Amino acid sequence: MDEQERQALEKEIEQKALEIEEALRRYLPEEDCPGRVPEAMRYSILAGGKRLRPMLMRETYRLCGGTGESVMPFMAAIEMIHTYSLVHDDLPAMDNDEYRRGRKTTHVVYGEGTAVLAGDALLNYAFETALKVFDNCEVDGIPLTERYRVGIRALSILARKAGIYGMIGGQDADLEAEKAEEVSLSRLLFIHEHKTAALIEASMMIGAVLAGADEKTVEALEECASHIGIAFQIQDDILDVSGDEAALGKPVGSDARNHKQTYVTLSGLEKAVQEVEERSQRALDILKGLPGDSSFLQKLTEYLIHRNK
Amino acid sequence: MDEQERQALEKEIEQKALEIEEALRRYLPEEDCPGRVPEAMRYSILAGGKRLRPMLMRETYRLCGGTGESVMPFMAAIEMIHTYSLVHDDLPAMDNDEYRRGRKTTHVVYGEGTAVLAGDALLNYAFETALKVFDNCEVDGIPLTERYRVGIRALSILARKAGIYGMIGGQDADLEAEKAEEVSLSRLLFIHEHKTAALIEASMMIGAVLAGADEKTVEALEECASHIGIAFQIQDDILDVSGDEAALGKPVGSDARNHKQTYVTLSGLEKAVQEVEERSQRALDILKGLPGDSSFLQKLTEYLIHRNK
Repeated sequence: MDEQERQALEKEIEQKALEIEEALRRYLPEEDCPGRVPEAMRYSILAGGKRLRPMLMRETYRLCGGTGESVMPFMAAIEMIHTYSLVHDDLPAMDNDEYRRGRKTTHVVYGEGTAVLAGDALLNYAFETALKVFDNCEVDGIPLTERYRVGIRALSILARKAGIYGMIGGQDADLEAEKAEEVSLSRLLFIHEHKTAALIEASMMIGAVLAGADEKTVEALEECASHIGIAFQIQDDILDVSGDEAALGKPVGSDARNHKQTYVTLSGLEKAVQEVEERSQRALDILKGLPGDSSFLQKLTEYLIHRNK
Repeated sequence: MDEQERQALEKEIEQKALEIEEALRRYLPEEDCPGRVPEAMRYSILAGGKRLRPMLMRETYRLCGGTGESVMPFMAAIEMIHTYSLVHDDLPAMDNDEYRRGRKTTHVVYGEGTAVLAGDALLNYAFETALKVFDNCEVDGIPLTERYRVGIRALSILARKAGIYGMIGGQDADLEAEKAEEVSLSRLLFIHEHKTAALIEASMMIGAVLAGADEKTVEALEECASHIGIAFQIQDDILDVSGDEAALGKPVGSDARNHKQTYVTLSGLEKAVQEVEERSQRALDILKGLPGDSSFLQKLTEYLIHRNK
């Protein structure tokens, strides 16, 4: 991808992120819902971000032939789950971060108690929102029982990938790894696979399921998403040692200063770059092997994995 | 109810709580699920307690003619949600409690970070567990579409009553009330209605829905549960000024010492007792007006509301 193509792609991604944000707003609690918690929910979810998970979900939905609106509540739900995990991760009891994406974190603005509740509320509201997939179940041509079945399957994936067998399992392992003297490479991959990749897997699987894809396609996309998620995370580790501070908007070298063990500190930069390359190639091969036009998903994958910020 | 009847009822309730705990264990994460978070989940949920919400759910299910197993995952789910709310409520950022039911609270044993994650994990796992209602959807005589519809309705009630329009909304208001100079009686009732009554409403409504009750019955039970929940909470306030320390197992007068505004401090003891009496009567009248044998639910209601501990 040359510089001009990259810029065009960045613009396209930005445009799609804005569209998703617009849709997201429609699924937030009503403006007149009283209390500080709904305000903190809006503050944290409207803090910007790449909207990567809903974007991957919608693109996968389209790739698998989906043309309806059933993916919308799940796009909002996955972004709510991602956001709640950041709100709780930033708490003093966890990473104790005061800033995220250049804005004060939720607990700094609203207080710790409200931030705990806002995280809880976002997680709970993610399920309330995803359940809206059943609101108009009787409107289109697909048999009702089949619509129920597909919606329930999507809900089950969401719940499992977000919980102790998915994202929370990874956060748990990460918390333990921070206390440990040494972390093995396989342990580090477990953390990346769960903490980061699980929600990306959920995004692509749910997109496929809602579009009516068969089980083999859903499994292929789960594997593809796993590679994307892990490569994305290793690229984060790489950028921390070799990134451009101006492009990143944050100082490099913080992992080393915090004695954080990463793929780069454990295996070296060269091996890390090679791992990203291999996983990227495997993800692209899977996408190319699927029927349908996956050209945008391929570009998005390359861009995410090889990003410089 | 004379002393002998009370003792017999207490024994019956205890027996039912033990049965529920046994069932609950079956729905916990598998013992070999690695990590500190699953361990903290088990620690917090197996800390005892009245198991009031699953008990009300099962009894309502039976009252409405339910005889199957579909209520079981929801019984486990509502107890997980109740438990997560206690784990997060006890955090230093919230009430900062070191003991609950005579045991150290989750964050004291496992650390704050793990307690935040364990609460998140219990909430998430509640939905994972409730979704198991669909696992054996094709086994009994009820049409598949109807089973899906009923399960989805139960899930929607669970999500709404636990979230910002239910329990979390009440916690939010409670947190704000603690900072306020004065709290009005209507605000206090809003807090009780949401923080305490919402999950009790969910319990009875879900029991009814899963048993196939009609919408009018579900609404009547929602009202009944609202009275039970609010009366239960006002009785808590009453016991704090007039209770027997030995029976309660905790010192009385803590609300006054903490300058906490309660129904008793706002309206006086006499009015509080009268309010509990009235709501109790309204709850019993609703139960008596329903078809089916509600005698145990009536006794349970009276016992809960007029308890001395």
